Amino acid sequence: MTRVAILGTGLIGASIGLRLRQSLKDVEVVGFDRFTDVARTAEKRGAITSSARSVQDAVKGADVVVIAVPVLAIERVMQEIAPVIGKETVITDTGSSKLQVLEWAAEHLRGHSGFIGGHPMAGKTEFGPAAADPDLFEGARWVLVPPVTASEHAISTTTNLVEAMGARLMFMDADEHDAYVAAVSHMPMLAATALFSMERASEAWPELAALAAGGFRDMTRLAATDPAMAFDITVTNRDHIVHWLDRYVVTLQELRRRVADEDAEESLYKLIAATEWEYTGFRAGNVGREQRSTMSTLEGMDFGDFIAGSWVTDKLQALTKEAEDRVAERDAEKQIRRQL
Amino acid sequence: MTRVAILGTGLIGASIGLRLRQSLKDVEVVGFDRFTDVARTAEKRGAITSSARSVQDAVKGADVVVIAVPVLAIERVMQEIAPVIGKETVITDTGSSKLQVLEWAAEHLRGHSGFIGGHPMAGKTEFGPAAADPDLFEGARWVLVPPVTASEHAISTTTNLVEAMGARLMFMDADEHDAYVAAVSHMPMLAATALFSMERASEAWPELAALAAGGFRDMTRLAATDPAMAFDITVTNRDHIVHWLDRYVVTLQELRRRVADEDAEESLYKLIAATEWEYTGFRAGNVGREQRSTMSTLEGMDFGDFIAGSWVTDKLQALTKEAEDRVAERDAEKQIRRQL
Repeated sequence: MTRVAILGTGLIGASIGLRLRQSLKDVEVVGFDRFTDVARTAEKRGAITSSARSVQDAVKGADVVVIAVPVLAIERVMQEIAPVIGKETVITDTGSSKLQVLEWAAEHLRGHSGFIGGHPMAGKTEFGPAAADPDLFEGARWVLVPPVTASEHAISTTTNLVEAMGARLMFMDADEHDAYVAAVSHMPMLAATALFSMERASEAWPELAALAAGGFRDMTRLAATDPAMAFDITVTNRDHIVHWLDRYVVTLQELRRRVADEDAEESLYKLIAATEWEYTGFRAGNVGREQRSTMSTLEGMDFGDFIAGSWVTDKLQALTKEAEDRVAERDAEKQIRRQL
Repeated sequence: MTRVAILGTGLIGASIGLRLRQSLKDVEVVGFDRFTDVARTAEKRGAITSSARSVQDAVKGADVVVIAVPVLAIERVMQEIAPVIGKETVITDTGSSKLQVLEWAAEHLRGHSGFIGGHPMAGKTEFGPAAADPDLFEGARWVLVPPVTASEHAISTTTNLVEAMGARLMFMDADEHDAYVAAVSHMPMLAATALFSMERASEAWPELAALAAGGFRDMTRLAATDPAMAFDITVTNRDHIVHWLDRYVVTLQELRRRVADEDAEESLYKLIAATEWEYTGFRAGNVGREQRSTMSTLEGMDFGDFIAGSWVTDKLQALTKEAEDRVAERDAEKQIRRQL
């Protein structure tokens, strides 16, 4: 019997629980949520076998702990489980920012080799266990971010967890991860919020709302993201989000220049047509470039036992070590700059 | 027997034809498309009764002419039909920019009181008659922009056409229309193009493409708009689009300031939470403000005969006159500025 504790039984936690219970035999899923009605709904939906009375009760004797709370709550959960967590227990999370989470793990789970950061790249704007779906992660990417101290046991166990979800595994270092998701997820979410709030504040809003069709709804849908989650993401991935917001502003200004200039019509048309062409390719599944070697995909890897050992590549170790050195270096630089 | 000519049998033209033939008795829909295979597909789909060999053949004897070609092609079509169009024929178009179209109509259909500008606020990123759908306009807004010289007959006929499509009618003046659609449709389309082209051009594109999930697809879907259509829209509504691009850039810069500033977290959270709350209301159908009186909606108007007369309000006449004076004034100002 494998015992999995899910801390936070919202959309993500409950979807993980549903999938685990449907796809694995001999698994017990203990859930905990600080909102008891959320845990109750998850239990009613069959996402958890039972609901624990405290975080500590949930993790006692657990083989695997999945922390599926909003990013800013992860630190507190780590502090709470640290005194009671088993030496062999594997711990992962589902937070959207990884550098901050790995820093908390290094601080609060010091000496424990069982933690691997995780981020399933799936979701929907509905939230809570009522919206849970065992197929939520089917075919989606799931990033794992192993600290350099992570045990082989932890890596193989989380790998198997991801495979059990039907997701496609990618290993990355935390800083890379945060940069990439800022580009494709966090910044676009804020761009949707900016677009909607701007139009909503316009004098002409009643007319705009009446005329808004599918295109406007597409462009603003992310403004419906759970505000607590959106805020947590933003403040834990500030630097990368600011970087991509700046790039987006520059890109819009350059496009604006071409739109305004009657002599730039040819370059405007080329931009629009080339983008449409590349976009169609992207939606058809063509990346249109060779994959870079820094991205380690593990598709096609065999599904082993759920709790199993002995899979770590030297490459992966080197990769994460390298990345952590880079982050440490940058932090040191920041520190120096602050002191100046 | 009512004879309707549809010039341009792509997604919009063919969808109008399908709906007309399904919902009205005694209607003959003659189609023309400069690409003969497009006309053939529309005919096979049942969107048109027959395919004419030329624009002139299509409009001869037509009670209603619907110009459903890309915006920049509308001028040429008007020039082509002008010599053969019947005095009583009602003419409308489906272009996304209206000021430019009304200027062409004033020039090329001079003295003809049958033209009413039109813009159905519906569509999809797929294009061509194969994607046609008789319910494409069901519940969508359809803007009519009558020139001040328009006959009552033309207004009532186009009104009935819109109702036959299942769409919700709004009257606006051309400049108002162009300002509003720049905000909710044209600028967001270009923002999607900017976002996708920026990420596609990034060094990290293979990783970004792998991690891009539903949110990124929502935010970039409009980059798949037919490039010819996107370009035509942009160059015929330049000023309003530039205005809204500038506002969007300022809004993003203001948001960026709040994200970057650790002391602005409260205001950042408030912005995110308030926007989510308002967005949820918007999607539930609440505009959240009183409708302004300059917007004349005609919902609930009875459906009369397809070709029928005598419905014009003094208010509408005054409104369009006022708007055209305003535009004429602005043009005169532009002229003066150029001469300086």
